[in-house]
Amino acid sequence: MKKLLTLLLLLCINFWTYGQKITSPNGQLELNFSLNDGKPEYALDFKGKAVILPSKLGLKLKDKPDFIDGFVTYNSEDDQVDETWEPIWGEEKSIRNHYKELLVTLHQDATHQHRTLNIRFRVFDDGIGFRYEFPSQENLAHFIISEEKTQFAMTGDHTAFWIPGDYDTQEYDYMESKLSEIRGLMPQAITANVSQTSFSPTGVQTSLMLKTDDGIYINLHEAALIDYATMHLNLDDENMIFESWLTPNANGDKVYLQSPSVTPWRTIIVSDDARDILASRITLNLNEPNKIEDTSWIRPMKYIGVWWEMITGKSKWSYTDDFPAVQLGVTDFSKAKPNGKHGATTENVKKHIDFAAEHGFDGVLVEGWNIGWEDWFGNAKDYVFDFVTPYPDFDLEGVRDYAKEKGVEMIMHHETSSSVRNYERHLDIAYQFMKDNGYNAVKSGYVGTILPFGDNHYSQWQVNHYQYALEKAAEYQIMVNAHEAVRPTGISRTYPNLIANESARGTEYQAFGGSKPNHVTVLPFTRLIGGPMDYTPGIFEMDISKLNPDNNSWVNSTIANQLALYVTMYSPLQMAADLPEHYEKFMDAFQFIKDVALDWEKSLYLEAEPGYYLTIARKAKGTNNWFVGNVNGNKSRTSSINFDFLDEGKSYIATIYADAKDAHYRNNAQAYEIRKVIVNKKSKLSQLSAPGGGFAISIIEGNKESLKGLKKL
Amino acid sequence: MKKLLTLLLLLCINFWTYGQKITSPNGQLELNFSLNDGKPEYALDFKGKAVILPSKLGLKLKDKPDFIDGFVTYNSEDDQVDETWEPIWGEEKSIRNHYKELLVTLHQDATHQHRTLNIRFRVFDDGIGFRYEFPSQENLAHFIISEEKTQFAMTGDHTAFWIPGDYDTQEYDYMESKLSEIRGLMPQAITANVSQTSFSPTGVQTSLMLKTDDGIYINLHEAALIDYATMHLNLDDENMIFESWLTPNANGDKVYLQSPSVTPWRTIIVSDDARDILASRITLNLNEPNKIEDTSWIRPMKYIGVWWEMITGKSKWSYTDDFPAVQLGVTDFSKAKPNGKHGATTENVKKHIDFAAEHGFDGVLVEGWNIGWEDWFGNAKDYVFDFVTPYPDFDLEGVRDYAKEKGVEMIMHHETSSSVRNYERHLDIAYQFMKDNGYNAVKSGYVGTILPFGDNHYSQWQVNHYQYALEKAAEYQIMVNAHEAVRPTGISRTYPNLIANESARGTEYQAFGGSKPNHVTVLPFTRLIGGPMDYTPGIFEMDISKLNPDNNSWVNSTIANQLALYVTMYSPLQMAADLPEHYEKFMDAFQFIKDVALDWEKSLYLEAEPGYYLTIARKAKGTNNWFVGNVNGNKSRTSSINFDFLDEGKSYIATIYADAKDAHYRNNAQAYEIRKVIVNKKSKLSQLSAPGGGFAISIIEGNKESLKGLKKL
Repeated sequence: MKKLLTLLLLLCINFWTYGQKITSPNGQLELNFSLNDGKPEYALDFKGKAVILPSKLGLKLKDKPDFIDGFVTYNSEDDQVDETWEPIWGEEKSIRNHYKELLVTLHQDATHQHRTLNIRFRVFDDGIGFRYEFPSQENLAHFIISEEKTQFAMTGDHTAFWIPGDYDTQEYDYMESKLSEIRGLMPQAITANVSQTSFSPTGVQTSLMLKTDDGIYINLHEAALIDYATMHLNLDDENMIFESWLTPNANGDKVYLQSPSVTPWRTIIVSDDARDILASRITLNLNEPNKIEDTSWIRPMKYIGVWWEMITGKSKWSYTDDFPAVQLGVTDFSKAKPNGKHGATTENVKKHIDFAAEHGFDGVLVEGWNIGWEDWFGNAKDYVFDFVTPYPDFDLEGVRDYAKEKGVEMIMHHETSSSVRNYERHLDIAYQFMKDNGYNAVKSGYVGTILPFGDNHYSQWQVNHYQYALEKAAEYQIMVNAHEAVRPTGISRTYPNLIANESARGTEYQAFGGSKPNHVTVLPFTRLIGGPMDYTPGIFEMDISKLNPDNNSWVNSTIANQLALYVTMYSPLQMAADLPEHYEKFMDAFQFIKDVALDWEKSLYLEAEPGYYLTIARKAKGTNNWFVGNVNGNKSRTSSINFDFLDEGKSYIATIYADAKDAHYRNNAQAYEIRKVIVNKKSKLSQLSAPGGGFAISIIEGNKESLKGLKKL
Repeated sequence: MKKLLTLLLLLCINFWTYGQKITSPNGQLELNFSLNDGKPEYALDFKGKAVILPSKLGLKLKDKPDFIDGFVTYNSEDDQVDETWEPIWGEEKSIRNHYKELLVTLHQDATHQHRTLNIRFRVFDDGIGFRYEFPSQENLAHFIISEEKTQFAMTGDHTAFWIPGDYDTQEYDYMESKLSEIRGLMPQAITANVSQTSFSPTGVQTSLMLKTDDGIYINLHEAALIDYATMHLNLDDENMIFESWLTPNANGDKVYLQSPSVTPWRTIIVSDDARDILASRITLNLNEPNKIEDTSWIRPMKYIGVWWEMITGKSKWSYTDDFPAVQLGVTDFSKAKPNGKHGATTENVKKHIDFAAEHGFDGVLVEGWNIGWEDWFGNAKDYVFDFVTPYPDFDLEGVRDYAKEKGVEMIMHHETSSSVRNYERHLDIAYQFMKDNGYNAVKSGYVGTILPFGDNHYSQWQVNHYQYALEKAAEYQIMVNAHEAVRPTGISRTYPNLIANESARGTEYQAFGGSKPNHVTVLPFTRLIGGPMDYTPGIFEMDISKLNPDNNSWVNSTIANQLALYVTMYSPLQMAADLPEHYEKFMDAFQFIKDVALDWEKSLYLEAEPGYYLTIARKAKGTNNWFVGNVNGNKSRTSSINFDFLDEGKSYIATIYADAKDAHYRNNAQAYEIRKVIVNKKSKLSQLSAPGGGFAISIIEGNKESLKGLKKL
């Protein structure tokens, strides 16, 4: 680490406007901070052109003078950091953290009690992060933020890839529109969800992906959301200014803090090449280093599960239809009549264990194994699950022993039904139960309205809960994959046992009526900016009515697109979500899911345009093997891939899983072609992707034996 | 147990009004149930005169048809129970549970989905209890009660002893007024409190004590408040009808239930002799029997504490003034400058242990022993205490060992600052820490606004919490004395480790400006109907400015009154609240506190008039010793005590601790006289009590030796 520290003391009083500037290490980004009539502002230029116009900074406090104006003096300090660090798992083996820093210490006047507010800016080559810091001081001990007033002033009516701002769900299809069109499109963007609370006709969520008319890509998000309210953005669509809009607690307050403390980082990733947005590591870099000492138990996992059959309605989470209301500890399941559709039976689970073992999967997830699913949803039921009591037809010990014998790990499922107090009350017992029975990873769920009522999924109170569950899991050496929890903000750097989140519209929506075919070309630019997603790809049977005659959903994707997701949707946790019997029909395509790696030496973003296409190549950690994925939007498109990332002088076997020429996500989704060719550093590929299609390539270093009989690309 | 079961099936359709009656075992109370135009009603007569006029019964449901009207048929069943049971501790060794029961099963019409509601009435000789019961049924699984509509229609403009209805505090001075005067007096009745939420200008709390103009005493309360919202009463002061008013959850809903379930019992104690109100065991009888198998660890305790010195402002809970805000686990107390006023120092605590050991006390309570008191209050601080980390000047292990050596038990203190989630998160660790260090009882506290904000102290959500903390304590064999928690409703029958509650204006208010001199003549008729109170009597120094020159409070009580409280304010947990040095000045009076028992064979209520006076005699369990207490209201009064409760043919030494002739709670509070005389079954005592005064008598069986030289009364 090279570290350069300069200290500038500017004691500037009675100037109308004065400022401070700092550039990125490569000089392309220039951040300007200024104090304008006592109000702090910042602006950001890229390659000499404005990307963020002068934007106000500040916070409204409850029952106290605001941190918005009345700033009369400031000091500033410069710093520069250039270091590299190694994540426990990730898109690359080592990550460079290279930025220049500007720490502005602002002092308020007497009517604002002479208080001090710090704003810390970090300017990277690919964007900036900044946050507010509240030093310990006499006139600021405990305080309540009633709103954060951070602006992001746009330079024009950009194109945005957005979902409605909402305190309770992120599970929307993305809209692509001009900023000026958001208000008009909002009603159709707010599709039904089991828990949702929108707040403004121009409110949108982060990470927000933007593109200017002159081809600048801008991404707005946050990093290190710890014990603070989740940030949304509200657009002033007359002036094209976004302003932070925090998720409230039950009584409408936004954040409770005490000094010393800091806010999360507000991040702006900027480039004129969309691929740089995907390659940015700003979100991780702005988080604290790993706090878990022994990480030997944290490892990527590929898994299957007893899940898709319930999602599609082929089977059920519940065991019986006997009870309109279940009382845990009282209701006697041993005498209940089974409904005959329960998915998590010992027999079915053992079948899955067999399949996992046969095909080299690490784990099997089982949902609906524990009692309480008869009335778990929509009933504001406090004591809804106990997380330790299996249904009569699920032999927990038997399954445990069988899985162990087969070398497969069971993955625990903790649906909380958003009865959060109940979950916290049972957390120690539930985690201990996992350890006692050999479960090392848990999928947790927060479906439905938060209990206690009045609170929201993304409030400070709940953000604190997800973190509590995560840190406690680390104590038990348990990996967490939290669904319906707040979207990630790079916290997996600090707590790498957070191996995935849902926090967006995942594959399940393909069985709830379908998602847009280009959905997966947007997610890496939005949801994945904060961390990996348990997207649960790998659906081979697109016609859901074949699983459940009452469900007419269609999976808007080709099989080749489904395979590509294992590369394009980075996650150390990857599910093969479809039923074993569907894979058995397409074992040649399934081979890619079996082969693809989970952890990467490096990642290259070959092609990218949000909403339209992206192609990523990744080198498997500790090997010379590469995997390439391409996902394509609504229209067919031909990719041009250059294999110059391969090692000089080496030959590789590339297995290309591509859409057939007449493939189409809706009309011909299962039409794929697989070909095996030799590639080297000089190879080039021109490859067609169908609408909602894509391709996946495995590139394995060859030897004479294995290359024999193969043609060059 | 004698049990008589009769089953009456009344299938009455298409009658305008029809009813069912049931009398108390002694025939003096008559309950009438009727269905009037599809609406259930009840009325209650005492000795042939109405005490409750026809009153509506029912519940409003959210988003569902109400349980208020549309009842078309009912069945009823009679039952009778006469049993006795032995409490683990109590006012008497054995309690008779003798009632006639009427179970009404009501059926609604088609527009109300043919649902069934049960109302169960139990009629005792001294009052009634009734509750709603929701049987399991097809059209009623999970439901939300938006309001309970239980009426108590008064027969006139009675006199009431009331405190303002409030969702967050019970710590008010009692008002005595006509019902018609409540509205006008409400503003002055709502005195300042650190957390308070009143809801109506005619809203009052239970237990509510009433007296009719023709001398009938009526007490309204509830029993077995489990997982339900606390009931207040709202008065329609035109028609003199009280109606139940439940405490809301954060979102305004009152109760979440599922069938099968029951509400708490609504109780009406009735007599023309105020003493019967005190003698009533209805509240306990309506609770479930003891659920704790091994109760060997539950035992009454007399204790002193490091507490009054902080309450008066003589010393402090906090250790340092260095930190405007404390961050547990980060803030370094080892280097902080002590403020020099910390009460919970090792030295001071050891002094208290010495005093406790010397005078035969069971325990020593220490408040302010754990870090976090610097910013604990009013800051909406989530992680406010960890319940296990002592201040640097409190040697926990040293104190523990010293106490053990001296044969004294330490009593733990868990102030939660109403950060309830934080307490639940630490509960297991905190309880285990207690067991590891020999603490078997905890005083818990819920000062300030409930976190999460929006919730109230007495909502279903919080009631569930107090019960959770109590039941978990039972698992650890820990006794609980919860302050600022919901007022008790006889739950100590079921969980006898609930050895006391505060839940009313206790002695501390004498150091916060003072309470009314007759306060203690009201509490046994109101707060104590639900269970014992940790009132913390025993103040000998009434002039608080002698402890803290900045505090001009005066304890509105004489020393004799303070002694009497150990008898009149029944509790298995009794504190001697004053400082050891104050007791050392009045060791002859202090002797009564040392002698008085904590657990009773039987209790006799010799004289009683709420707000004016009461005299109680109790026989110590397992002995022939009696203790008598009298507390008196605002004016001096002479009691006439008949000792006919003593054993035939035996002589006893009575030590009478009485007000001196010129004693007065304000002018001459420390003037008392002690005399020792011989009493027997035929003795009579005429004894003056000063304003705010009283007397206490210990009656010990004598023998020739001990009686020598004493005069007969």
